[in-house]
Amino acid sequence: MAVSAAEESLARWGVASDAPELPPRVRDYLAQHVGVAAPWPAAEPSTWQLPPSRISAPATSALRAAVGDEYVSDARSERLAATGGAAFIDYARRRAGTIDDVPDLVVRPGSHDDVLRVLAVCREHHVPVVPVGGGTSVVGGLRTDEARIALALDRLGRLLHLDEVSGIATVGPAVTGPVLEALLQARGFTLGHLPQSWERATIGGYAATRSAGQSSTGYGRSDDMVESLVVATPEGTLELGRGPSTAAGPDLLGLLLGSEGAFGVITQVALRVRRLPDVRVYDALVLPGFAAGVEAFRDATQSRATADVMRLSDEAETATTLLMSGPTGLAGAALERYLRARGVDISTASLAILGWEGTDRDLVRARRAATWRAMRRHGAISLGHGPGESWRRHRFDGPHLRDALMDAGYLVETLETATHWSGYLALHSDVTTALRSSLVPTPGPYVMSHLSHAYETGASLYTTVIAVADREDPVAQWMRAKSATSDALMSAGATITHHHAVGRDHAAWLPQEIGPLGVSILRATKGAVDPDGLLNPGVLLGGTP
Amino acid sequence: MAVSAAEESLARWGVASDAPELPPRVRDYLAQHVGVAAPWPAAEPSTWQLPPSRISAPATSALRAAVGDEYVSDARSERLAATGGAAFIDYARRRAGTIDDVPDLVVRPGSHDDVLRVLAVCREHHVPVVPVGGGTSVVGGLRTDEARIALALDRLGRLLHLDEVSGIATVGPAVTGPVLEALLQARGFTLGHLPQSWERATIGGYAATRSAGQSSTGYGRSDDMVESLVVATPEGTLELGRGPSTAAGPDLLGLLLGSEGAFGVITQVALRVRRLPDVRVYDALVLPGFAAGVEAFRDATQSRATADVMRLSDEAETATTLLMSGPTGLAGAALERYLRARGVDISTASLAILGWEGTDRDLVRARRAATWRAMRRHGAISLGHGPGESWRRHRFDGPHLRDALMDAGYLVETLETATHWSGYLALHSDVTTALRSSLVPTPGPYVMSHLSHAYETGASLYTTVIAVADREDPVAQWMRAKSATSDALMSAGATITHHHAVGRDHAAWLPQEIGPLGVSILRATKGAVDPDGLLNPGVLLGGTP
Repeated sequence: MAVSAAEESLARWGVASDAPELPPRVRDYLAQHVGVAAPWPAAEPSTWQLPPSRISAPATSALRAAVGDEYVSDARSERLAATGGAAFIDYARRRAGTIDDVPDLVVRPGSHDDVLRVLAVCREHHVPVVPVGGGTSVVGGLRTDEARIALALDRLGRLLHLDEVSGIATVGPAVTGPVLEALLQARGFTLGHLPQSWERATIGGYAATRSAGQSSTGYGRSDDMVESLVVATPEGTLELGRGPSTAAGPDLLGLLLGSEGAFGVITQVALRVRRLPDVRVYDALVLPGFAAGVEAFRDATQSRATADVMRLSDEAETATTLLMSGPTGLAGAALERYLRARGVDISTASLAILGWEGTDRDLVRARRAATWRAMRRHGAISLGHGPGESWRRHRFDGPHLRDALMDAGYLVETLETATHWSGYLALHSDVTTALRSSLVPTPGPYVMSHLSHAYETGASLYTTVIAVADREDPVAQWMRAKSATSDALMSAGATITHHHAVGRDHAAWLPQEIGPLGVSILRATKGAVDPDGLLNPGVLLGGTP
Repeated sequence: MAVSAAEESLARWGVASDAPELPPRVRDYLAQHVGVAAPWPAAEPSTWQLPPSRISAPATSALRAAVGDEYVSDARSERLAATGGAAFIDYARRRAGTIDDVPDLVVRPGSHDDVLRVLAVCREHHVPVVPVGGGTSVVGGLRTDEARIALALDRLGRLLHLDEVSGIATVGPAVTGPVLEALLQARGFTLGHLPQSWERATIGGYAATRSAGQSSTGYGRSDDMVESLVVATPEGTLELGRGPSTAAGPDLLGLLLGSEGAFGVITQVALRVRRLPDVRVYDALVLPGFAAGVEAFRDATQSRATADVMRLSDEAETATTLLMSGPTGLAGAALERYLRARGVDISTASLAILGWEGTDRDLVRARRAATWRAMRRHGAISLGHGPGESWRRHRFDGPHLRDALMDAGYLVETLETATHWSGYLALHSDVTTALRSSLVPTPGPYVMSHLSHAYETGASLYTTVIAVADREDPVAQWMRAKSATSDALMSAGATITHHHAVGRDHAAWLPQEIGPLGVSILRATKGAVDPDGLLNPGVLLGGTP
């Protein structure tokens, strides 16, 4: 049986034939630092058995009446296309043939009013509803085996209006990053939001999960970019956000951002867009260790001398980045000599990428100089534009590389958090320790981190871990490590997630972050907009409503 | 009887003996452009009759037990000190001898736990509670004649902790701007939040009302500055805000910011603070009209070339600013000639103030140059540093000037909103028209506006109106104009308030701004934290809970 596009996108992030090769030197490094692994057979979509739809015939008929026959389907391909999840455990389950999280029925509304009608039917027939955008959640935002319809929003995927004066693009929720960038750039604008999931994630998903991107330090997080939302709920329509800012009471727009489909279905998003930059400069540099780099990034941020992209790898990530770049790239004796001549030992160096963009050439130049002044105060050494530009070209490679690592038999997963500067290095240590001690060493796991979003008061911490996959139960293997690390984040006073959202995987920790009364407020809000608890049950608040 | 400090601060904003004189040329201008007014006798605190406390003896005893005898009082001076309101109608009422909005009993908790105990007593005895900070609300945030206790927070007024690494100051809610600035500046930091009410307003009030200040374009609004909050509610404690940013679900911190005492009592605020700037440059400039100025400000903002202070007066405000600055200041034939030689007619000019601050001298210089490039693209002409520095010295004069104008018999009030750039000039026209048509011309009213907070997608609009006070019923006179203008804001799609909050005066319009379902969410939140509706009843949601 030929593998359909929907099947392929569940089996792995990228197209199998395009999967990057792991060069021999990388395989050797993995064997030495993580352990020897046996190839892990790719997921075989042909083995996936889908149970029949559990949605009743009357409910299905009513849904057909609501949106039109052709937009309601329980066909295998449509159900798989509306299945999501791009976490390690999602792919590990699929490699094992498990696909128990497929929606029963796919409904594809063509308008906001369609969504309202669908929600009314679901309420009448008591059918849970999970809105689906790009399906790229890495926190189980869509992963449930409960009976439900998937509200696939792909028909709501247009650029509806561009206010060129205000710099505001109004879009349907299903527009993806690449499509929106193409439409905007043709008219001289850019959104500048570049999450690792950019190739597939949708604008509605950005807003529903508060995603951040690689340029968030300069362009802001996705939640900073949203000017207004239109949301369909079982209790009616919310239109939130007037003007660029307001003091008209509590921030209800901010209450719907990050609501992960549990409070309503986002049917329209107005986004702040920027003038397309004429100037882009990306630099790579090395700092004498992660601690020095963190101080340099803090200094730059607190001097208001930020770059738009600010990324700092710890020593472990620096080593693998140099390794990946290959003998013709950054690695090798020449770089080692270059740095040694400047007093930096390559084995304890920390690689940074900085990027500045803008329409005012002199201002970009001055901002770059100011960031560099801060960097130099902490011992930075320039590696020139080349590696920075190379990083920019390869900025979406991460998930593709994960395909290759899993093929080779490795567990590879990421997690992320944020904290204030004063606790940043301790948090880095805590996360590293929690992962190392919760994953059986063989000799790994290999734990490496970077800082990718700098704020005046603190920064994000993004950690990648690679271990030899426990092929008996890779899901349990990861969940133990995830649990230990999440506990460590809570103990450290950090957030459970800086930009991956709560989903189901973080729901057990959210009460520690917001307290029991915070949970009461979320439940009360849910009760006001979704009194029957039909919207994406299980995210945010966990299983028991 | 001697006037107490509490009485004096209710009678007028400033100390009577320090009230600015209106120079003869200003009086003439008012007579010509607004109308001839008769002096309005100052408020006479000795005539204010306070009714006895309506709080029951058992409740009063329980409150004494909760916080200590000496911190519960129904003395006239304490009750007046816990009375607030700095709107025109507040002062007009007091001039007429009306002081029916005094709290019955003043309770002064000394800790977060004290506040929880007070709330428990109030719940048991069903006593409403209004938290009181600086009492500077201009939207009726404290104005009610219902029986209640005032929770005066002045004992919670310390700088509790300064995290110099992260740049975070943790403070009690009752610290005022000047006190906090003195404490911070002694340690090399600044908050940089400078609302017009700076002399009296408190940090807790900033957070509870989402205030903005004169440097908000560069330093951010007060709500941007809050890293975390501790809030006491009848249902327990909320501790919200971990790390510099998060994707852990809906933004509950943002739900408590702007909650105006209706969801809880803010007992601790952690604020982002900045390094004290070494460099401050303030420039004044003239643009060929308000429309050109708005385009210049838009251009600067969208080029990411903002100043930290960005203020642009319309033609009417420019005229009065020149008038107020006097024959030795900006006004006069020399300026007229200077501008005419550069092609600008003084009578249609728009005055702008720009200010840049920072610790990196070269960066401040480059940012200033970039802002100027944008300004020059729209015909800006420099007036040098002098008038900019003069504005900075006089930046808190507004409320003092209002005292003098009221003494002279004028209604003077401000209102503010924000909208996107594409609708900005139409909004300016709508607001002006609504005020002109709702206040009887005699020949005034005089309506003048400025832009004081620029965002990438839009800006605030702050309008001052001066009319001859209707001495029969100045409150009704203003409420008619306020109502007409608020309707105009809603029709224009603007926000009912950019930085003055909702209070009681805007509560009737909030449902239009957030919709009926938005109101449901606010009510549900209120129900979760304050099920008996005891906290500041009447703000946000209006009179009927």
